[in-house]
This record gives sequence, structure tokens and C-alpha cells, in this order.
Amino acid sequence: MLSVAEARARILAPLRPTGTELVGLAEGWGRVLAAPVLARLTQPPADVSAMDGYALRAVDGVVGARLRVVGEAPAGHPFAGCVGPGEAVRLFTGSVIPDGADTILLQEDATREGASVTVNEACAARRHVREAGQDFRAGMVLLEPGRRLGARDIGLAAAANHPWLTVHRRPTVAIMATGDEIAMPGEPISPGGIVSSNAHALAALVRAGGGVPVTLPVVPDDRAALVAAIDQVMGASILVTTGGASVGDHDLVQSALAERGFKLDFWKIAMRPGKPLISGSVAGMPVLGLPGNPVSALICAALFLLPSLDVLSGQVAATPRTEWATLGAALRANDGRADHLRSTLSNGPGGELVVTPFARQDSGLLSALARADALVLRAPYAPEAPIGSPVQIIRLDNLGL
Amino acid sequence: MLSVAEARARILAPLRPTGTELVGLAEGWGRVLAAPVLARLTQPPADVSAMDGYALRAVDGVVGARLRVVGEAPAGHPFAGCVGPGEAVRLFTGSVIPDGADTILLQEDATREGASVTVNEACAARRHVREAGQDFRAGMVLLEPGRRLGARDIGLAAAANHPWLTVHRRPTVAIMATGDEIAMPGEPISPGGIVSSNAHALAALVRAGGGVPVTLPVVPDDRAALVAAIDQVMGASILVTTGGASVGDHDLVQSALAERGFKLDFWKIAMRPGKPLISGSVAGMPVLGLPGNPVSALICAALFLLPSLDVLSGQVAATPRTEWATLGAALRANDGRADHLRSTLSNGPGGELVVTPFARQDSGLLSALARADALVLRAPYAPEAPIGSPVQIIRLDNLGL
Repeated sequence: MLSVAEARARILAPLRPTGTELVGLAEGWGRVLAAPVLARLTQPPADVSAMDGYALRAVDGVVGARLRVVGEAPAGHPFAGCVGPGEAVRLFTGSVIPDGADTILLQEDATREGASVTVNEACAARRHVREAGQDFRAGMVLLEPGRRLGARDIGLAAAANHPWLTVHRRPTVAIMATGDEIAMPGEPISPGGIVSSNAHALAALVRAGGGVPVTLPVVPDDRAALVAAIDQVMGASILVTTGGASVGDHDLVQSALAERGFKLDFWKIAMRPGKPLISGSVAGMPVLGLPGNPVSALICAALFLLPSLDVLSGQVAATPRTEWATLGAALRANDGRADHLRSTLSNGPGGELVVTPFARQDSGLLSALARADALVLRAPYAPEAPIGSPVQIIRLDNLGL
Repeated sequence: MLSVAEARARILAPLRPTGTELVGLAEGWGRVLAAPVLARLTQPPADVSAMDGYALRAVDGVVGARLRVVGEAPAGHPFAGCVGPGEAVRLFTGSVIPDGADTILLQEDATREGASVTVNEACAARRHVREAGQDFRAGMVLLEPGRRLGARDIGLAAAANHPWLTVHRRPTVAIMATGDEIAMPGEPISPGGIVSSNAHALAALVRAGGGVPVTLPVVPDDRAALVAAIDQVMGASILVTTGGASVGDHDLVQSALAERGFKLDFWKIAMRPGKPLISGSVAGMPVLGLPGNPVSALICAALFLLPSLDVLSGQVAATPRTEWATLGAALRANDGRADHLRSTLSNGPGGELVVTPFARQDSGLLSALARADALVLRAPYAPEAPIGSPVQIIRLDNLGL
């Protein structure tokens, strides 16, 4: 069976980023940049003051000197003249430093009396001056393609004078839940039926990952209905199915996909929870078949679907971020399947991050997954680990999970 | 001057959660729950099989026994009869276990021939049975009010049969940038002018924090215009201003707020960057006045506005999450202001998280903030810290910043 890392590499390899679109700057948050953002101007555009005070010649900035205030230059209203010997201009944080001046006398180091100001602290040349271009110069690349834009990136693109951004389109993720036993929340439940949870949780995760979910009506266990559903979503960035991935007689998804020329890459991974996982493509559309068990489906989605969304969105492939933590409960040796233990996080006496796996790891416990803060990653055949061992974890809240 | 923690406590204390609204389950991701989600059913609703195989009486599950297959029970189609002695029913993961049966023979431990199946591994009673209610029982509280809903919570609410969720309304955040020098990206820039970045970055951060930004047109440095702008946004969950918070002559925001009965709580914090920070309220609307400097504004927003959004959204107050990391560069002793050093993260030889502050911490460098992965928190008067010291950090990417 494939390892988790091999499986992820094989799932991601054929994925291609979506095309581009133009969005207004205000719509850019969370999107992935598709073209570099170059500075369209120099910032600051001229030498400006870093403080409130007075602009003057440094040679005049000696203690006791009394200077004539010849004007003022609030931010946005530069002083048009030149600061001569014995002169000063009142200015503020961000004000352009007038010609002639080369230093700033801080407001708190000055005594103002009418049209004159007295220097109470010596002023070194160029002090409190923000030089033109110290943040960036026109033409510089400020943001690289492939970056998912945060609030500060939006601020930087704005400062660089970009009202529009070229980003990748949000990938469309078709979500197909199958099974005669599935009812929608609030709708009648047949005997032996259960309420659909996977499709809704996956749609939420797709949003968290920056994609657009298309949730199909639940498809019954009927091959013709499955084929019709598949035909309906051709052209999606990826088709995600849930259920029907094991070897049971009633798993019709694979045979329905086969009718449309499905190319199977693999359908089993050495992991727990979630061994049955289909990867392949149908008519060029990638297909990821998640297990029907809700806990398995969500953990597989975190490990395989979120990185797929990153790649489809044009981001540099980001496997889920792992961190180190200290084990709060002893673990037995692992078998041949990589394990993903639902765990809580706390802080140890020294502030260190302590991760404590739940005693019960049954993949039927969706309520326990909701209570978990993190997954402890246990490699195949990992030896037993006493309390205090360092272990790798994936935090769940960071994923929008 | 106030400490960062005191300032945050005073900013958060008067904030009240928004009212509630009903949203469809599919719209619930990222919203804050305002009413508990109780299980409307028991999950699993009956004892079900955890595997594909055969249901039988444990007394019949001895190696070599040959049982008569009397029916099958795919998930959603329970077997209506009773499993008698010497009988078995074919079933699958999630199938209801028929009356009479009390264990599961795994498919891989069985040999099927026509209407009979031979037991190849002994079956202990209750093995591979998921008991009714092991995930949750009808009436249990599954999700508490005040929780920001992740994908797994949506899945759990779905499984508990909730098509609707009662959540807090998204807080409305009025964003008012002031200053004659400010131009919108792409619009004409006057001499000495700069392009607006704060309002856009803050609007993006408000979205990241689950709020609805209302970005006002830039208000010139004119008291009447400022008063008119304030009147326009009365009733917002919070008014955020940027610029005009220092003591400069041209800072008119406070005097404009005063005309509408502004109650000032404080306007200075012992922190860097961002000392000038106004907190107060006008006609019951909380007001947070951020510095005009973009780096200061965003760091103050991360420290004070995001927790405010948490409280306004009904979430339990969450100060920005801090973590420990190992210092990658020596730091000098700090002065009396808490510092927030823009830094990069990397992994040390043992996998540990290493945080390295930029050599240059000028708050004029928005491009450096965009390159930073984290802020190192330096307490007032913190002693010098050699390479390898443990320090507290705030990761920026987790904040949507």
C-alpha cells in the first residue's frame, strides 16, 4: 500500500492551477496572486518626517538656538519654499521635508513662542528622516505570484497603487455523496438511514481552502444515477466523492466512473483512519474518492484535498503544516498504517505545547473529532512512545477544519 | 502609559455580542454559534457494522462453520428478519445489525460459496459492532454557543439533523481613514500625497476576523467633514479610525468625535510600533483609533481589533494566540515599551521553531511586514536575549494578516 506522502505526491502531480481573473483590490483577500505586484511608485515618494516637529538645517540644530518658523507643512501639503539658515518649518509625521532642511527637531525637544522655536536638544543630520524609497522603489516586485494574499499584502498592493489584482480563479470542487441510506438534515430519514454529514463538512472545508463547493444532491446506489451525476459535473476543477470507496459489493462509484473512462491511479493508502481512498481522473477531471466514514473523510480531506486546493489555486504546494509537541500520554507501538490520532492541546509547566491523544480513537466518533485540537502523526511501525516524547502534529483549527 | 494587556482588557470590557440570525447549515462555516446544537437523533441510530462482512450469532462464529446466507442488508436497507442459528446475513460498513446477530465475520475472514459462507477466523461477540449512540445520543449538547464553526462542526451539526443554525450576526466595522494626503489606489495623487493602504488592509483583516467592513470614502482634514462621516456610521458594531491619533496639530479626529459626545478611555499605550491608540465610545458605539502608520495600524489591529471582533461575534475573548520559539538572533535589552519585532520563522536542526527578527524594525516598512512570518513579543524592560533564548511569538498567517 502507498504511504501518505507518496499518495499525496501522486494526487498533486497532475493538478494544474486554474486560469486567472481580475478582482478589485478589496476582493483580493484570501485569493492567490497570479501575476507579480510591482511597485508603481516609490514609497515614501520623497524624504519625509518620521515624527511631529520642525524641519531645519542640522547646523542650526544646536541647544539654545532660536529659529524663525517660516511656514508649516502638514502631511499632504508640502512647504513650497526653501528652509534657509536660522529658519524652521513646522511639520508632522509623514510630511515631506522641505528643500534646504536636513533634520527634524522633535516637538517635545522644542519650545515654541509665536513665530519662533527654541532648540532644546541637539539635532544630528538626517535624524527622524524617512528616506525616499526606504520601503520600496518604483518597479520593485513586492508580491510574487503563488502567494495567498493576507491583509498586509492587500495593504502593500494598495500602497503600491494597484486598484486591481490578477488572481487565480477559485477552483470548483464538485462534491458527490452517494448512498441509499443518506438523508439531508431536516428531511425524512428512512429506516436504517443516516443524515448526510460528509457533503456539508467537505463543502465547508472547500470554502476554508479557497474553493467553490458544488454540492450535488445525494446520489442513490444506482449505476445509471451515478453516471448521470458524473456527467453533470464534468469540467469541475476536481470531483470529490464520498462513500463507495471500499471493496464492498455496494460500492458502485468506481464502476460508474469506469463507464466514463475513469483512469484509476490508486485506491488504498497505508493510513488510519481512511484506508480506502480513490485517486484518478475521468476525461481529464481529477477525482478524489474519500471514504464514507465522516471522520475518515475529513482527515483524508485535510491531508489530500486541502493541498489539492492549494495547487489548483496556484499556490506553491503546501502539505498540511506540521509542528512539534510533547506527548501527554504514552502511545503503543504502531502497526503498518500511518495513524492520525485525535488529540487535545494544552500548555505544560514550561509553556511547551502538550498533545494528548484521546483514549478512544474509533473513527465512528465525529463528536470526538469536533473536540480535538490536533492530530498526532504516527508513522508506520513507529515504536512505543512514552509521555514526554516529541511528536509531530497537525493543528486542526489552522485548517478551517 | 497603559500596558498592551491592560489596554486590550479595557477595549474588550464594554463590547457586547451582536444579535442572532438564522443561517442555513451550508452558510455556517466560520460563523459563531449563538445557541447550542443538540443532537436530534442518536448516532448510530442502531447497532451497526464497522466493517464489510456477515452478521451472525457469535456462538456460530467458530472456524470451519458453514452458515446459510439468508439475506443481505446494504446500508440503508436493513434486513427485516431475524438471524437464526446457523444463519448469516451479508452486510457492509454502516449496515444495521439484524435482530438475532451479535457479531460480524469480516469479509476477508470468510469464504463465500453460493448461498453459504464458511468461517475462517473465530468471531468474538460484539466485535466490529458500532453500538447505538456511541457517537452521540439524542438530546446531548454537541456544540456550545460561542464556538466559531469549523468544517467538522458543520459535519457534526448535519449528522445531528440540523438544517439551520442560530449564529451571531457578523459585526459591522466602519473604517474611516482620514487625511488630506490620502489618495485611493489608481486615482490622482497630489504633491506630497500617499496612496491609501490602511483602509484596504483593515477591511481585509475585518473579513479575516469574520466581520463586515464598511469602508468610508477618505475624510479630509476638516472637522465638519469628519463629524459628518461619524454621523453616517452611527450604529456600527465598532468604528475604526486610522490616522489622527497622535498629538499633532492636524489630528482633528478626536475633536470631531468630541462634538458628538465622545467618551475617551485612553489614547496611548506603552508599545511599539503604535503608541498612539485611541479607545472610547461615541453615543454607545465603540471607537478604536489606530495610528496612521500602516505597520503600526496593522499590528495594533492584530492585537486589539481581532480580539474585539471575537467578542463582538459572540466568541469567548481570544487574545491573539501566542507560541514559543527559539531566538535566531540576539536581542538587546528593551526599553519601557512592549515591542513587536517583525521576524521570519524557520526550523532548527532538531525541528524546533526558530524565529529571527529583521535587523531593521522601522515601522515605515510595510514591505517588511509583508515578508514577516511572526512577531516576537518583547515585554517592557525585557533583558537582552542571546541566540537560542525562548521567546513568545504571534504567527501572522494564522490571523489572516
